[in-house]
Amino acid sequence: MKNYLSPLGPKADKDTVRRHNLSLVLRAVRDEGEAGEATRAGVSARVGLTRAAVSSLVEQLLETGFLTESGKTFSGQAGRPGTALKVARTGPAGLGVEINIDYVSVCVVDLAGTGRVRQTEHLDNRGSAPADVLARAAGIAARTLDSAREQGLHPVGAALALPGLVSGGSVRQAPNLGWNRVPAEELFAAALAGMRPGTPALPVRSENEANLAALAELWFGGLGAVRSFLYLTGEIGVGGALVLDGRLLRGAHGFAGEIGHVVVDPSGPECRCGSRGCLEQYAGQSALLRAAGVEESGGGATGVLELERRVRAEDARAVAAVAGAGRMLGQVLSGAVNLFDPDAVVLGGIYRGLMPWLSPPADEELTGRVVSGLWSRGSGRLRASSVAGDAARGAAALVVQDVLADPVAYARPAQVGT
Amino acid sequence: MKNYLSPLGPKADKDTVRRHNLSLVLRAVRDEGEAGEATRAGVSARVGLTRAAVSSLVEQLLETGFLTESGKTFSGQAGRPGTALKVARTGPAGLGVEINIDYVSVCVVDLAGTGRVRQTEHLDNRGSAPADVLARAAGIAARTLDSAREQGLHPVGAALALPGLVSGGSVRQAPNLGWNRVPAEELFAAALAGMRPGTPALPVRSENEANLAALAELWFGGLGAVRSFLYLTGEIGVGGALVLDGRLLRGAHGFAGEIGHVVVDPSGPECRCGSRGCLEQYAGQSALLRAAGVEESGGGATGVLELERRVRAEDARAVAAVAGAGRMLGQVLSGAVNLFDPDAVVLGGIYRGLMPWLSPPADEELTGRVVSGLWSRGSGRLRASSVAGDAARGAAALVVQDVLADPVAYARPAQVGT
Repeated sequence: MKNYLSPLGPKADKDTVRRHNLSLVLRAVRDEGEAGEATRAGVSARVGLTRAAVSSLVEQLLETGFLTESGKTFSGQAGRPGTALKVARTGPAGLGVEINIDYVSVCVVDLAGTGRVRQTEHLDNRGSAPADVLARAAGIAARTLDSAREQGLHPVGAALALPGLVSGGSVRQAPNLGWNRVPAEELFAAALAGMRPGTPALPVRSENEANLAALAELWFGGLGAVRSFLYLTGEIGVGGALVLDGRLLRGAHGFAGEIGHVVVDPSGPECRCGSRGCLEQYAGQSALLRAAGVEESGGGATGVLELERRVRAEDARAVAAVAGAGRMLGQVLSGAVNLFDPDAVVLGGIYRGLMPWLSPPADEELTGRVVSGLWSRGSGRLRASSVAGDAARGAAALVVQDVLADPVAYARPAQVGT
Repeated sequence: MKNYLSPLGPKADKDTVRRHNLSLVLRAVRDEGEAGEATRAGVSARVGLTRAAVSSLVEQLLETGFLTESGKTFSGQAGRPGTALKVARTGPAGLGVEINIDYVSVCVVDLAGTGRVRQTEHLDNRGSAPADVLARAAGIAARTLDSAREQGLHPVGAALALPGLVSGGSVRQAPNLGWNRVPAEELFAAALAGMRPGTPALPVRSENEANLAALAELWFGGLGAVRSFLYLTGEIGVGGALVLDGRLLRGAHGFAGEIGHVVVDPSGPECRCGSRGCLEQYAGQSALLRAAGVEESGGGATGVLELERRVRAEDARAVAAVAGAGRMLGQVLSGAVNLFDPDAVVLGGIYRGLMPWLSPPADEELTGRVVSGLWSRGSGRLRASSVAGDAARGAAALVVQDVLADPVAYARPAQVGT
């Protein structure tokens, strides 16, 4: 009975318990703070620890700069007046760096999840060597870090959002960038270190950009009670991510979510990935524009705006092209839903603006093909993403998540960067 | 930033810690016992708790009957002689009840995961009302419980393995049984209680049978280091399950894994699920036998044996039919692998005996269509299931897992059944 309920996990001891409870209290203050004012009594009620235990934990979090306390006192619902607690607006933070086909976007997110600094540069990354692209991104990151420091924020790590298969710090393949086995973390970290002599190196991690956009949608978007969903983003490629019960499903090697390469027609057109008839060849940006008779001149964004203009004007060819893509999406999504059983499917990227024409045929396929019968038209399970579904913010928040999960590990800002 | 690192989870306190550590020690004894003799020193080394702490925890587990100690003493690698610890062969156990199209199989598994009692009855369940089928299953279960009690085993719960969409104690749909919204747990529990007057009711849970077969494959099969896999079982239907990092992926409503209803051809033949062109219509037992020109006379098993005989005899039509099914499986699996990124795909049921003819075309599709490039021919990622992939045993082990995870909750056998 090997593997049965394994791995055993760490032993639990007093130190573990206190670290765990510090994280609980820090997150409870953040959550309470969203609803109104956070007090020791409110936190105590929320996490189920005694007032005394919470006070001691809050004290430590105040001393180490994770929480701040307003001088103001006020009457709680019961008992003596309390002071209002807040998650610190300064101190540990996360840096997110999205490197996409035609732009680089960098942001810093604080402990409360708020985006505090953002720098975006539009540039076509396809013509340049990966090392040059990563060095440019590091330059933007260095300037963003300077701005963050001026606001008293100290990013404790960076996360790269990359449009491809990402694993073990490297991009295994990013067909639309033309990248193949690029050690992205190492190249970025080295370039950034070179620009910031005398400062400690910033730990760098990396992740697929659709995965991070999905997490940002989960954390900051309008999904409400939905905790399990399939996220699709229509771009030059069709990216995807699976979130189950609030956790990203990365797969055994970090390559999960590649819905753009699910076969629609085994003998269909060749795909950049080496296969044939992938969804991307029917519902990706180029295929969609081609079917609609819209030229991609002047970059994809212009073409997509033109496509949106034409469907709104009821141009027959454009409407038929979008409906066809919707049907294909619906067929592939029905299979994915039968396999994965999410609460919702969220469509982002170019699909957002096309939803009124795209979703009816997609909904029809889902209604007829999902075995559970939960996907009938009007169930509202197929929906457009919000503006929050942003990979750079998701990347930065991923770093912040580490801090929230174990503040003790990040309690000495002098040692951890900037 | 709602949902962010939520839910907060339980507070950690001394009681939680001790219960957690009792579970750690119990599982460590089971794991150590597999490798040879388990001793307090060995357990201490394995879980990282002090000898004194382990001794106190072992004492409690001996007193409550979860562990036994052999009188024999022997020299360990270091220190004074120790006595050998074992997981008890009597006491708390799990009852598993598989209800399938043409048989019911019941088994009892002990704390070590060993199958101790098994009763199987072959009968066609399609012609009977669900309540009658469940009452018959309860009768077999009652006799199995009697046998278990004679061995000193006290099943603390039962799990039903059912061939359909299972959620909240009910079968939402089991097309091949003709069941629709059947409150299976309730009917089974009531029937069982009626047969065992004066005994406390046995808690009953239920789960899709492919899910439980996959867990049994994980826990008792030959998967080695593989912890993430897609499990497919070819029967009258094509069942499926996803296991990620040693955990069953149930989906948001418990309906995940329905790979038999992924679309192969949107305008293909009608499927019992209401859709068209599902994988089941190309690679299910009936489709396969029909394509091979084998009659299903005398029940499916006879037809499948005849098909195996013909492919072994190199009958051209049979070989072509199996190869065709293999290609379809490969196409659908490549999509599932791109979505889910497992370490392996395990084929069970009728596919096991057909692997030499089925897997080459399936492998070829996987090689050409999986983006990660990890599925090249000869990677060994596509494999046959072992005999261990048995839903009844998986069901019983699921109950045992609860006991191992929190033995304190099951420490008084007098209160918990039989």
